[in-house]
Amino acid sequence: MRIILIGASGTIGQAVDAELSQRHDIIRVNRTSGDFQADIADRDSIQRLFDQVGEFDALVSTTGKVHFGPLEEFTAEQFELGLQNKLMGQVNLVTLGLSRIRAGGSFTLTSGLLNDDPIRLGASAAMVNGGLEGFVRGAAIEMPRGVRINLVSPTVITEALPAYGPFFRGVKPIPACEAALGYAKSVEGAQTGRVYRIGWSRDT
Amino acid sequence: MRIILIGASGTIGQAVDAELSQRHDIIRVNRTSGDFQADIADRDSIQRLFDQVGEFDALVSTTGKVHFGPLEEFTAEQFELGLQNKLMGQVNLVTLGLSRIRAGGSFTLTSGLLNDDPIRLGASAAMVNGGLEGFVRGAAIEMPRGVRINLVSPTVITEALPAYGPFFRGVKPIPACEAALGYAKSVEGAQTGRVYRIGWSRDT
Repeated sequence: MRIILIGASGTIGQAVDAELSQRHDIIRVNRTSGDFQADIADRDSIQRLFDQVGEFDALVSTTGKVHFGPLEEFTAEQFELGLQNKLMGQVNLVTLGLSRIRAGGSFTLTSGLLNDDPIRLGASAAMVNGGLEGFVRGAAIEMPRGVRINLVSPTVITEALPAYGPFFRGVKPIPACEAALGYAKSVEGAQTGRVYRIGWSRDT
Repeated sequence: MRIILIGASGTIGQAVDAELSQRHDIIRVNRTSGDFQADIADRDSIQRLFDQVGEFDALVSTTGKVHFGPLEEFTAEQFELGLQNKLMGQVNLVTLGLSRIRAGGSFTLTSGLLNDDPIRLGASAAMVNGGLEGFVRGAAIEMPRGVRINLVSPTVITEALPAYGPFFRGVKPIPACEAALGYAKSVEGAQTGRVYRIGWSRDT
């Protein structure tokens, strides 16, 4: 398969690359490096990417920014970062990529556990992750030509503990290579409209 | 209790009014009628509302717009309506109302079933409803002074069948007075961070 990997240089992106490149042709995309460059917060930039890459079989996104901060101090602009970057950035990868993806292809987006298992400072991340879950379930039933869409919601990644560990005390981390399996399952499996919760389980 | 009811003239709003006004003082807010006027898509309008109303014990929102349309034809502006109106409109009621709500007060927002039980044309509604679920769970654990927040997710309302029935074939409707019970449970109960799914159940 010809797979576009958005966020290829990130912690999860590198692990997805290592997993999928064993069997597939990976087109690596980052903001400033890789085979092609794109900023997912910019629709024109996404459109240029698809114009450059042409047809593809799968798109995997492992990227997206949100602001973390105390709820009582959150500004409109800080909420807007998550909405325009991690949420609509990934949604636009789907809506703009739909005309270029081959029949039977797949989109795989990334959320995270905070909408079901919240932490302090994480209200925007929780909102964005919940929005991604709703979008993926809603979009799955309208996909044309057998195209599928799933969401991977990994728990905290071991390699990211130096940066995020203090926010996730008591949460068991998983190595990025384990999170990468969720993306392989989405791309190489047959399911659609699913949320793969990797390394965690719901309490409700 | 002194309760601000946003969307008081709507189908659900009227039923919430009938339920809660039996025991509480209701401040009715609509865009162009009621005791006070506010447009939830406009932060300045929300701020003016809180300046006019002063302290309150509970805020109930039963309103919010989203665009319905085929996924393949959805524009950025159409997604933006749901993000800025039903999603951030209700989020802003919370973040801007936090400084005026009394200790032990509550916020109750409204989503809907489409993020878990999607229909055609509903990708934006599914996204917005999922975002509201995530936000409510995330915000609940950061609420100061014992303030609570819950979400009511009603199924299709009988009184709205003339407008929405064709989109929800096979879905059992409930009368608005039944949906109103979810708001009473949120306002008069003690739970927080909960999603009250009224008239439906998850299949996962």
